[in-house]
Amino acid sequence: MKKEAKQTPKLRIIPLGGLEQIGMNITAFEYEDSIIVVDCGLAFPEDDMFGIDLVIPDVTYLEENIDKVKGFVITHGHEDHIGALPYILKKINVPVYATRLTMGIIEHKLNEHEMMEVTRRHVVSFGQTVNLGRFRVEFIKTNHSIVDAAALAIYSPVGIIVHTGDFKVDYTPVFGDAIDLQRLAELGRKGVLALMCDSTNAERPGFTASEKTVGKTIDHLFQEHVDTRIIIATFASNVDRVQQIINSAYKYGRKVVVEGRSMVNIISTAQELECLKIPDNTLIDIDELKNYPGEKTVIITTGSQGESMAALSRMAEDTHRKITIGSGDTVIFSSSPIPGNEKAVTKVINNLLMKGADVVFQDVHVSGHPCQEDIKLIYTLVQPKYAIPVHGEYRHLIAQSKVVKELGYEKDRIFLLQSGDVLEMDSSGAEVTGTVPVGNILVDGLGVGDVGNVVLRDRQHLAEDGIVIISFALDGRSGSLAAGPEITSRGFVYLKEADALMNEADLVVQEAIWKCIDGRVTDRSKIKAAVKNSLGEFFWKKTMRRPVILPMILEIED
Amino acid sequence: MKKEAKQTPKLRIIPLGGLEQIGMNITAFEYEDSIIVVDCGLAFPEDDMFGIDLVIPDVTYLEENIDKVKGFVITHGHEDHIGALPYILKKINVPVYATRLTMGIIEHKLNEHEMMEVTRRHVVSFGQTVNLGRFRVEFIKTNHSIVDAAALAIYSPVGIIVHTGDFKVDYTPVFGDAIDLQRLAELGRKGVLALMCDSTNAERPGFTASEKTVGKTIDHLFQEHVDTRIIIATFASNVDRVQQIINSAYKYGRKVVVEGRSMVNIISTAQELECLKIPDNTLIDIDELKNYPGEKTVIITTGSQGESMAALSRMAEDTHRKITIGSGDTVIFSSSPIPGNEKAVTKVINNLLMKGADVVFQDVHVSGHPCQEDIKLIYTLVQPKYAIPVHGEYRHLIAQSKVVKELGYEKDRIFLLQSGDVLEMDSSGAEVTGTVPVGNILVDGLGVGDVGNVVLRDRQHLAEDGIVIISFALDGRSGSLAAGPEITSRGFVYLKEADALMNEADLVVQEAIWKCIDGRVTDRSKIKAAVKNSLGEFFWKKTMRRPVILPMILEIED
Repeated sequence: MKKEAKQTPKLRIIPLGGLEQIGMNITAFEYEDSIIVVDCGLAFPEDDMFGIDLVIPDVTYLEENIDKVKGFVITHGHEDHIGALPYILKKINVPVYATRLTMGIIEHKLNEHEMMEVTRRHVVSFGQTVNLGRFRVEFIKTNHSIVDAAALAIYSPVGIIVHTGDFKVDYTPVFGDAIDLQRLAELGRKGVLALMCDSTNAERPGFTASEKTVGKTIDHLFQEHVDTRIIIATFASNVDRVQQIINSAYKYGRKVVVEGRSMVNIISTAQELECLKIPDNTLIDIDELKNYPGEKTVIITTGSQGESMAALSRMAEDTHRKITIGSGDTVIFSSSPIPGNEKAVTKVINNLLMKGADVVFQDVHVSGHPCQEDIKLIYTLVQPKYAIPVHGEYRHLIAQSKVVKELGYEKDRIFLLQSGDVLEMDSSGAEVTGTVPVGNILVDGLGVGDVGNVVLRDRQHLAEDGIVIISFALDGRSGSLAAGPEITSRGFVYLKEADALMNEADLVVQEAIWKCIDGRVTDRSKIKAAVKNSLGEFFWKKTMRRPVILPMILEIED
Repeated sequence: MKKEAKQTPKLRIIPLGGLEQIGMNITAFEYEDSIIVVDCGLAFPEDDMFGIDLVIPDVTYLEENIDKVKGFVITHGHEDHIGALPYILKKINVPVYATRLTMGIIEHKLNEHEMMEVTRRHVVSFGQTVNLGRFRVEFIKTNHSIVDAAALAIYSPVGIIVHTGDFKVDYTPVFGDAIDLQRLAELGRKGVLALMCDSTNAERPGFTASEKTVGKTIDHLFQEHVDTRIIIATFASNVDRVQQIINSAYKYGRKVVVEGRSMVNIISTAQELECLKIPDNTLIDIDELKNYPGEKTVIITTGSQGESMAALSRMAEDTHRKITIGSGDTVIFSSSPIPGNEKAVTKVINNLLMKGADVVFQDVHVSGHPCQEDIKLIYTLVQPKYAIPVHGEYRHLIAQSKVVKELGYEKDRIFLLQSGDVLEMDSSGAEVTGTVPVGNILVDGLGVGDVGNVVLRDRQHLAEDGIVIISFALDGRSGSLAAGPEITSRGFVYLKEADALMNEADLVVQEAIWKCIDGRVTDRSKIKAAVKNSLGEFFWKKTMRRPVILPMILEIED
């Protein structure tokens, strides 16, 4: 009588990244023969991922189901939502759907990777719906710290899923409309199966302030600092912020210089797409700065996070080729440090202050993510059956689930997923039924995935105590020591002042080798182990350090 | 007629550390044949100081004037004020003066370094004055996040200097008296030449709240979480905080376990000195935990800063041998992350939440440093002729100088010193007249100062892209290749999957060597350079990485 549950097709929601960390957002939605993928972001390396440039998601699951994958649907143009696209598209070449500015930024990336020709791109307007296999996806206007951010209504045969992307509720946005709360309410009325909502700020009570409040603060600062040059650092992608700085500059008769590669890139893209309006004769080239008094100029720059190679850091370190900081400068950080960047930002602030600049670094920023009351608003409009907090570390997901519980949701309607979880749902229920492989693929220079745990552990070990290399040659026939041992080190001790230690180490090595030779040990790996152990012990006793010890044996055949 | 200015002896104030960073506080006061040194702290290594355990100040100046040095005068028992003592006392063996608990903590350190026998120690009471050459030093009661903190009134022949140490104004301290504001006022009435005041919180408006407010919060949390075990992480040295946790535990009938080496050490020292009162039958051993239901116990632990080896981190990682975290636990962070530790703390929070624990990490802490209004109070009591902001990064010194300017001080009465500056003053004036050598001495294992810039740069380079070693033997007479080249790497690529690359590299090396041999190049360093250059170029082209390349040549003599 009882029909087997497995028979009814279900919607499968599979986050492939982004739930244990900030960054690397990518989620697959699967129904029968169709998969769509929302976002394709990168993560920045953790502190102990030495030498790694960026981290992209393991998409083995998509590769194994490549015939099902209908396309990437992108919510907005931040690196943690689009940064892995050039890498992943090389393996999974399906169409990409995004709004105008988002696509503009993606295209810039594709150009850099010489992938424009091979990538199918579809610009989508707000309110528009695209068909992707068994899914339909509607793009809904939201607000965020980048223009043209979208929430997605994903229509599946078992119900509607609303995915907010990163968003905030801004009733008075700088560019374009406020978030389309009416449409979210309409969907809520129809019935929404699940809401996947941004958790980044879920620990913060209250509401997120409008971007326009920052504009007022900036205007105020321009008014207060009429006698100095103004240098403002902010996120390159925050086009609205840049717009407001330019508005104030124009109002107070200052010329604007844009400095820093990513800032120049995004501003030119935004200008082309008319998301940014710059009055004529306002923008000047950096080389024209000398033609104007400092108090008639403003420099908008990258480096608000203390990134060591960014323009502001170079100014602070006095290594910027064209801008020198002094007591005639007011430097404004229109940003707050992203967790982990506090020390780098502080270093830049200290350096700027030491050069005599006035530095403003408090309260010239608002967040692009919803606080607790904003989250409540969205839930109250959408009224989903299930809540799936997304975007944030586990602590943020937990914080959103607490907010949702306050709204009366029971535990069984809230899903705290981890990357790789397969959440199966239909109109009658939802449960995590299994997992798929997920992980971090490390990108180092041209290498994608060739640096794994072994190499990373080696780098960590090398960083900690350096390396000691012992090279010697053994006679292939007689087994006797033909040359060496030569011993050297890097990152262990200062060789020029460690003669005594290294001479002793030489004796330790010789003794270990001769003991092997005298004992007729011919197995090279055993000889290496003997050298490694005796030298390791010697160094630990003498220095309490454990360098990597690397014996290399050459074979002499005569 | 005009007497030469140089003739009149002056007071010289020479900060030897602590003014560009948090930590490593040490300041020399010199008058004719007498030098006294206030504090002798360590700094924790910067993120790029790989493998370094701690950083101590360069005291060359003291060594060169060792006959003048009368003693170390210590303000309180935090690492950034006492941590370098065991290292510096080895070179400059002079008496140490400190209050009771401060000395208790110092003695614990001296014991570890087996230096108790050789160190002269003098415990000083508040209100007491010690004579040190041309100086007299009075210890004045203050409040701070450790018990027994002192400000110093330094009586010199040219006037009184007040040094606050780290302090806060706490009208309702947990242990002992409030800061001795009356004495500070009295000194102010007499006339104070200069005030050296804690700047750590000078960017924060308002007043710092009393430690007792945290006690109320903790009590509240105990009341709210009657059904779970409670684990509280805080700073080991915050004896008052521990006292308040114990008070609440006692009140709610919970047994207390103290976990983490530094916590156990300081609590036992504080108990011996009666700075901490634990009711009988309250403290239990960690092994007794199993005899009590979770909701009748509380564990006070180290690890509030996410330190990877601390007890709480081990609990969160499931590597603690005796405590397993689960849904029956409430974990309270009675601390806020020190800048730079945010990510480590967040990692611990995430791990605890994933184990099902409830985690409280907001508003269970107050600072131990004065905010802007507290600073104004101290200046208004002491009314020094000169202001010398101390303790903090440059941004904090600048912030204090802004506060001081609000009080009417002109620029020429405020000295923003850098470590090494020599500030000369007498009753008629003050100016920076020169500098003395200062710097960071790095401690790595048993090595003090043997890791310098060369070794650190090597470690950074090794961490970034690893190392490739090429070993080969040349015939001493013929100059021909007798063995090798052998090539291997660590931290560069995953060798097991890089056969093709390493085979090609092998050819590149062979070509470089043969070119030298054929060209009759015998200079070993030229051969090494040739190998290094060709291989470096090859790897950069293939991988965009720049590993350390280390050729080693063995000489075969036959």
